[in-house]
Amino acid sequence: MTTPRRAPGPRRDTYTPETLLTVAVAVFNERGYDGTSMEHLSKAAGISKSSIYHHVSGKEELLRRAVSRALDGLFGILDEEPARVGRAVERLEHVTRRMVEVLTGELPYVTLLLRVRGNTDTERWAMARRREFDHQVAALLKAAAADGDVRDDIEVRLATRLLFGMINSIVEWYRPDGGGQLRPQEVADAVVELVFQGMRKPA
Amino acid sequence: MTTPRRAPGPRRDTYTPETLLTVAVAVFNERGYDGTSMEHLSKAAGISKSSIYHHVSGKEELLRRAVSRALDGLFGILDEEPARVGRAVERLEHVTRRMVEVLTGELPYVTLLLRVRGNTDTERWAMARRREFDHQVAALLKAAAADGDVRDDIEVRLATRLLFGMINSIVEWYRPDGGGQLRPQEVADAVVELVFQGMRKPA
Repeated sequence: MTTPRRAPGPRRDTYTPETLLTVAVAVFNERGYDGTSMEHLSKAAGISKSSIYHHVSGKEELLRRAVSRALDGLFGILDEEPARVGRAVERLEHVTRRMVEVLTGELPYVTLLLRVRGNTDTERWAMARRREFDHQVAALLKAAAADGDVRDDIEVRLATRLLFGMINSIVEWYRPDGGGQLRPQEVADAVVELVFQGMRKPA
Repeated sequence: MTTPRRAPGPRRDTYTPETLLTVAVAVFNERGYDGTSMEHLSKAAGISKSSIYHHVSGKEELLRRAVSRALDGLFGILDEEPARVGRAVERLEHVTRRMVEVLTGELPYVTLLLRVRGNTDTERWAMARRREFDHQVAALLKAAAADGDVRDDIEVRLATRLLFGMINSIVEWYRPDGGGQLRPQEVADAVVELVFQGMRKPA
């Protein structure tokens, strides 16, 4: 590790790779990754481009770190005991609930992951990892259908897409500090109830 | 009406406002409305900019026509008899099913509507109309809860958002001519079943 140097920019460089990431992710989400230059990052962080290069090799490294954080959160779910042990339908319920919690807890990182388009190696890697996660959840749904616990009249791939569609859409409106704010727990409960029990009252 | 002039561009201008719209919407969806210039439209259509101005006043008129087509499709649902007559829960089911059908049937137009960001008057008008549609569906859900037909333990606004989240996400992956293609009807059935009955098999 090198000692942080005095930044020549308008603001003293007190960033760590971690805090710089917070700024970068906000800019990526606002302008799109493709539309963000090192100049934009430098302006948003209030430090010079060379100070940024002191921390990271460039914007692709920032992207990799950011989407890794989202992916680690998501894949971490699959390692949790309730996702590994028990009936498939219960494991699927756990994974659904935790996906909403990771999404709301790591909102800017997951938002970025969902918007990645595939123009660079890092983007393509992120998309491949995302697909791998989707496949693991689809496999769980398939197992739950084979157990006879979930309906098998909806094709697994279609059901998985609709499930992910509902969950991922939360990034479009959820704001942790929004007025009349909903706690992550409430959103997670609502998704699990809706997806597994449906909207109609049992007769 | 003036007689169509011979276009000076590389291709004879045989467009109507309607067929020009098809080209424009494809370009808007690919580049984003903000990122599309008259130059891009001219290249994609293979006719000169002045030929385009012969048909429409500019790109904002094309946007207005395109999102109008999506909005007319959506609001048209609410005028259909099964959306107006009967128990609220049945009307809501009808509206849900028809939303999926309009979305898959008018895919590029609804995709554009969902991506509009609010930088111009036309975009802001489209967003306001979209909100108005959302409110009408939310009112239907509220009425169905008041009738005791749908669960009232999920806040109406949250349930509406999750419902729209699932439906709107379909534009991200549905392709009418995709391999292993699903018919709009199958997707609509799956959404209605999932949203109203849920994934778990009735015990």
